[in-house]
Amino acid sequence: MNQLNNLNFSGGPGALPESVLLKVQQSILEVPEVGLSVLGISHRSDWFAAVVAELEGNIRKLLGLPDNYHVLFLQGGATQQFSMIPMTLLRGKTTPADYLHTGYWSGKALAEAEREGPVRVIWSGESGGFKDLPGDDELAYSPDAPYLHYISNETVEGLQFHRVLGRDDVPRVCDMSSDFLSQPCTAERYSLIYAHAQKNIGPAGVTVVLVRDELLEDAPTDLPGFLDYRSHIKAHSIFNTPPVFAIYVVLLITRWLLDEIGGLTRMAEINRRKADLLYSQLDNSDGFYRGRAKTKDRSLMNVTFNLADTDTEKRFLAEAQAAGFSGLAGHRSTGGVRASLYNGLTLAAAEQLVGFMEDFRRKQTR
Amino acid sequence: MNQLNNLNFSGGPGALPESVLLKVQQSILEVPEVGLSVLGISHRSDWFAAVVAELEGNIRKLLGLPDNYHVLFLQGGATQQFSMIPMTLLRGKTTPADYLHTGYWSGKALAEAEREGPVRVIWSGESGGFKDLPGDDELAYSPDAPYLHYISNETVEGLQFHRVLGRDDVPRVCDMSSDFLSQPCTAERYSLIYAHAQKNIGPAGVTVVLVRDELLEDAPTDLPGFLDYRSHIKAHSIFNTPPVFAIYVVLLITRWLLDEIGGLTRMAEINRRKADLLYSQLDNSDGFYRGRAKTKDRSLMNVTFNLADTDTEKRFLAEAQAAGFSGLAGHRSTGGVRASLYNGLTLAAAEQLVGFMEDFRRKQTR
Repeated sequence: MNQLNNLNFSGGPGALPESVLLKVQQSILEVPEVGLSVLGISHRSDWFAAVVAELEGNIRKLLGLPDNYHVLFLQGGATQQFSMIPMTLLRGKTTPADYLHTGYWSGKALAEAEREGPVRVIWSGESGGFKDLPGDDELAYSPDAPYLHYISNETVEGLQFHRVLGRDDVPRVCDMSSDFLSQPCTAERYSLIYAHAQKNIGPAGVTVVLVRDELLEDAPTDLPGFLDYRSHIKAHSIFNTPPVFAIYVVLLITRWLLDEIGGLTRMAEINRRKADLLYSQLDNSDGFYRGRAKTKDRSLMNVTFNLADTDTEKRFLAEAQAAGFSGLAGHRSTGGVRASLYNGLTLAAAEQLVGFMEDFRRKQTR
Repeated sequence: MNQLNNLNFSGGPGALPESVLLKVQQSILEVPEVGLSVLGISHRSDWFAAVVAELEGNIRKLLGLPDNYHVLFLQGGATQQFSMIPMTLLRGKTTPADYLHTGYWSGKALAEAEREGPVRVIWSGESGGFKDLPGDDELAYSPDAPYLHYISNETVEGLQFHRVLGRDDVPRVCDMSSDFLSQPCTAERYSLIYAHAQKNIGPAGVTVVLVRDELLEDAPTDLPGFLDYRSHIKAHSIFNTPPVFAIYVVLLITRWLLDEIGGLTRMAEINRRKADLLYSQLDNSDGFYRGRAKTKDRSLMNVTFNLADTDTEKRFLAEAQAAGFSGLAGHRSTGGVRASLYNGLTLAAAEQLVGFMEDFRRKQTR
């Protein structure tokens, strides 16, 4: 219906599936079961309570999440979590939390944690330009850390952990903003998972937090209400007016994952095929397209690469745009090219991009 | 087009104008000037920078806001401001800030301020059941308070200040969440104005803050980035991913206010006429409809009233709903009936409600 939306490779907010966009569009004038615009329905209505309950249930079903986890829908993005987590788990502590510094976003998380309490960086990829991730032999976890924090997928650099890090006796806290619900996940191995919506599961404006009940037992009691996970748990995510629209779109995405895609195993297969297409094009380009990340740590979500020089990159981006592709410019901190392959991007779109890349390379190397 | 939306008297999120809803609907699949879904456009795009710039300009134009004010678009609602304000202006202070306790929401603001520093409640309507507001002779402002905080319109109780409070030598901080851009406002008399969008200017998920530059001069430097107004000022409201969709809808509302309504003086006339219709119905009902608020302090936004008993109120609400009206139940803390008359509600809708009330009263008193 809209070819530009289909070819949107933006790093985020990312493309959403067309069937969901059509339902969202309808809801702007009229949510079918209510008759009112989604923008004018009270967050205290029975309808919205049912939205939150169904969405929570869908996330539990998709992830097989045990009952001792709370599912919260908050505002403020991952950035607010960068602060809320150490406010809750690190304030007043003398033993440092373990943090990994694997790219742009984990650097931001680290800086906010350091304001709140002691932090130990157990690995940093900064000196290597964030081109790879540590192996298990490079990671010495503290057995007495209040928690371990890491980011499962670094959106800017295109790096992704393909395993669960940490020790079972130290709470794992993981920012899954850019790969949440893109693949199955053994959620019960984490004490807290957070993910803003605007990559794989909805628009900007809402953040999902899964938190194990026991993690909050010793949390400070003097936090502002909106920064206290327990306020939001007690109020079923309606502590104050929540972002009703964004939460409703996330519900539609989870319905799409369950009913149209058929679950996260199937979603992961599709995402894997999109990434394989792109990485094959890089690997078989005789160095024309140069992947940023080391092969073992490449992200299935963000394929980052460079061309011979910035002039060629500019020409590539301009021609891609003229051909209807958008969102391919790399993050402003790194430059280069980034093709983001979130849930909403179709396999057909990845095929089209690979076709374009093939043509561009042939023309340039003719 | 959708009669139910037209008759939505919800206390918030409130009804938005139909012409805006139609533009929003279009943008879900395609923002005209971009070609992409509004949900998938990067917040770092030129388009979004232009949205923020135009919206800021529109607010400046509507309010005649001087250049020494910053215009910010934040997340977390008024609730986040309840904390951010004392974190910024009260932490480490020994002189208390002046707070008014005029209803449900100012009580929430007060409780959060008390966590952060010393607070003096200069007037409370609690013992009187929040049925009126103080006159000038009841208010003894502290000349050395770091600031004065009050709420211009108490949504739950239907109380509104029809004047500016405070002293010119003490910064005024005002929560205008439920009457912002519903009427002209001498914004330059305040040091900080905040308003979440979901009453008069958009959907839930974004909060407008107008802050005078000098107010932040002595703010603490150790706040988390997302709770520091200066981070957001420096980043032009893109410190982290903002709620792109909600901000875009607020832009469309400001365009509607400027181009379709013709400015805030005209908007205030319409809002006044709607309120006059309702209050006349109350005043001329021989006590059938009993206004909650004292006449001098009645809100132009939220008309709150009771009927003879809760059974009659229930019947009123049920018949109103059957007739297509929605959102008329009073806040869960007070019960009764509340008709909210935000910008998006048309004069014709207020006329229809008054007609319904008239009929209901005749039937009951026949």
